[in-house]
Amino acid sequence: MPRPITFLSDYGLRDEFVGVVHAVIARIAPDAAVIDLGHGVPRHDVEAGARMLARSLPYAPAGVHLAVVDPEVGARRRAVALLTADEDRLLVGPDNGLLLPAADHFGGVVEAVEISASPWRLEPVSATFHGRDVFAPVAAHLAGGAPFAEAGEPLETDKLVELKMPEARAENGQLIAHAVAFDRFGNVMLDVEHDEVGKHGLRLGHPVSVNEEDGHYATTFADVAAGRLLLYEDAYRWLALAVNRGSAADLLGLRLDDEVRIKPSGE
Amino acid sequence: MPRPITFLSDYGLRDEFVGVVHAVIARIAPDAAVIDLGHGVPRHDVEAGARMLARSLPYAPAGVHLAVVDPEVGARRRAVALLTADEDRLLVGPDNGLLLPAADHFGGVVEAVEISASPWRLEPVSATFHGRDVFAPVAAHLAGGAPFAEAGEPLETDKLVELKMPEARAENGQLIAHAVAFDRFGNVMLDVEHDEVGKHGLRLGHPVSVNEEDGHYATTFADVAAGRLLLYEDAYRWLALAVNRGSAADLLGLRLDDEVRIKPSGE
Amino acid sequence: MPRPITFLSDYGLRDEFVGVVHAVIARIAPDAAVIDLGHGVPRHDVEAGARMLARSLPYAPAGVHLAVVDPEVGARRRAVALLTADEDRLLVGPDNGLLLPAADHFGGVVEAVEISASPWRLEPVSATFHGRDVFAPVAAHLAGGAPFAEAGEPLETDKLVELKMPEARAENGQLIAHAVAFDRFGNVMLDVEHDEVGKHGLRLGHPVSVNEEDGHYATTFADVAAGRLLLYEDAYRWLALAVNRGSAADLLGLRLDDEVRIKPSGE
Repeated sequence: MPRPITFLSDYGLRDEFVGVVHAVIARIAPDAAVIDLGHGVPRHDVEAGARMLARSLPYAPAGVHLAVVDPEVGARRRAVALLTADEDRLLVGPDNGLLLPAADHFGGVVEAVEISASPWRLEPVSATFHGRDVFAPVAAHLAGGAPFAEAGEPLETDKLVELKMPEARAENGQLIAHAVAFDRFGNVMLDVEHDEVGKHGLRLGHPVSVNEEDGHYATTFADVAAGRLLLYEDAYRWLALAVNRGSAADLLGLRLDDEVRIKPSGE
Repeated sequence: MPRPITFLSDYGLRDEFVGVVHAVIARIAPDAAVIDLGHGVPRHDVEAGARMLARSLPYAPAGVHLAVVDPEVGARRRAVALLTADEDRLLVGPDNGLLLPAADHFGGVVEAVEISASPWRLEPVSATFHGRDVFAPVAAHLAGGAPFAEAGEPLETDKLVELKMPEARAENGQLIAHAVAFDRFGNVMLDVEHDEVGKHGLRLGHPVSVNEEDGHYATTFADVAAGRLLLYEDAYRWLALAVNRGSAADLLGLRLDDEVRIKPSGE
Repeated sequence: MPRPITFLSDYGLRDEFVGVVHAVIARIAPDAAVIDLGHGVPRHDVEAGARMLARSLPYAPAGVHLAVVDPEVGARRRAVALLTADEDRLLVGPDNGLLLPAADHFGGVVEAVEISASPWRLEPVSATFHGRDVFAPVAAHLAGGAPFAEAGEPLETDKLVELKMPEARAENGQLIAHAVAFDRFGNVMLDVEHDEVGKHGLRLGHPVSVNEEDGHYATTFADVAAGRLLLYEDAYRWLALAVNRGSAADLLGLRLDDEVRIKPSGE
């Protein structure tokens, strides 16, 4: 049996890009299961894609993890396949930092291969659709059991490109976080692991101020009235903002990477 | 072979929610086919989800039917698995009425299990993503053949929460229906089974008045000129409104649950 | 093993139409792999669907290719299944020209069957959802190995309806092309094969004028500054327009089928 392949991208579902990648995989590894983790990463947003991949993969079976958010396609960025320390997971995608936060969940990268000129690529390789011409065929061959080292040229793992992500910090008694993802419900994920909340003087069930708006630090949506703001531990154990039956993104006027200032407030 | 799983939700496809549910299923029941019935149910609209599930399932193979439209996630609503009288279909989802209209197509529910504390759930269960932590693992175990009774605690079927849906009625020689679903084309599904049309004095091929707009009761779009309104029997044998090559929803300014007053009109 | 099925439509993913087609297939051919090529064809745009199918299928495994963009559903247009000269590919869909450009990639059509009254159709056939009632069951039976000739009544291939597509032309030293597809990134595909570019005096790396806007004829997005227009060979070897990290569709205000006038410009 081939290994399962997961697939995440910023291709969206309006065009045939995702379908063509599936088609290419099906020609090479017809029996491989392909699980679409999601294709709604905001266009070219490598950081958002990296976070989405990192929070999804721990729930996915070990296998080949294809991810494509690739603003530099056709330019000089490398294409890579990576092997993780734990579970022998294989990640395939552009070398722009997209894959590394996910790899960290599995002990980090122990081997890397540069696959831009992989013998498995589809010739001629287009300048703009490496998902189809490079990444999909490499992922499919790996899923089918082809040896990792044959995917391309060896690459030292310390040469891999890392993302610089904004970091939450404490300042003047406030927690300064960032809006790092929005879901369709207008919930806002912050760049703070929930375990760190205690440090910042926030207590469950108590009022908080979020960018000067009043809210509550609560467990779930229904703990506050409809239309009210809450700060809560989301399903991935990160801190997040929501409005019960509404949109925290709209209420607070937040956009990606915006600062979010949080502090306990008087009752 | 495991049983097939169908999956319907209001998660949309912008986020990774649907993908993560697939991932969880693939870890537990890697050989189970998962058929996405649709994830575009309007957010938190249990009634729309219930109708979409009820009209889809008769076309699906018997198996496990996972459905999640769950505005009360994390609050006190129960999570359930249900067994139908006919075809041994298993429905898994929140106990908010979402599953029952579909179950009625298969003879109704003969056994129910409360699965909030199912031994198969993913620990720790998050407050906001029971699709991943409760419903998906239960659906996957059932698809793999695990015994229904082991999914959780037995629950009396007459305790299941039922939806109150608006009901079409006759009044002053008019049929008063409701807009219960919209498709991407702007076609509007009404809460009237087509078989009941005769009662209301409507005759195929004749003019009708719909909220004071002129239209025709016709068989298909092409029976009226482009831009003209028609009342017709839709593909599920319900009464619906369309505009040939246009949008009935826009023409009539209809929103979900709006009243639609229909009567024969002079020629 | 059944043959794989590809599926393309204008159904979108908001409704359950795509899911129900999958469900119908799963009842008839439970082991057939179904590859969604895409469901974002603009509503009723047969030409856009034909182009999307033609550029996708060469990447897909040979099998059954289901495609539904069907503005005349329920009216008199025929429903057909087609067999190609090369690779024995089977195409299933409405007889409105949607399938023929794709068939041309495989040597054209050698046999055709009219399937409107196929013995495999779901009874009663609705007036509006032939994807579910006619095309899906025929595709599924063919995938499972049922004989092509039994799908319906033989039809002479020269009776198949062909699309009239706009054609690019040279005029007064300009190349007059048309915007035939837009992707989510605002890239614009033109109706000119890249190999023909030389004829029109365009030289790689040199400036071009596109509807009076300045741009460059380049290899990939990153060859021009952010926000600048480029003319390039797209991943399917057609000529296309893009704005690096922007939208060519927006910059040029283009809509489907709009004329695009291209000429070399002074440096």
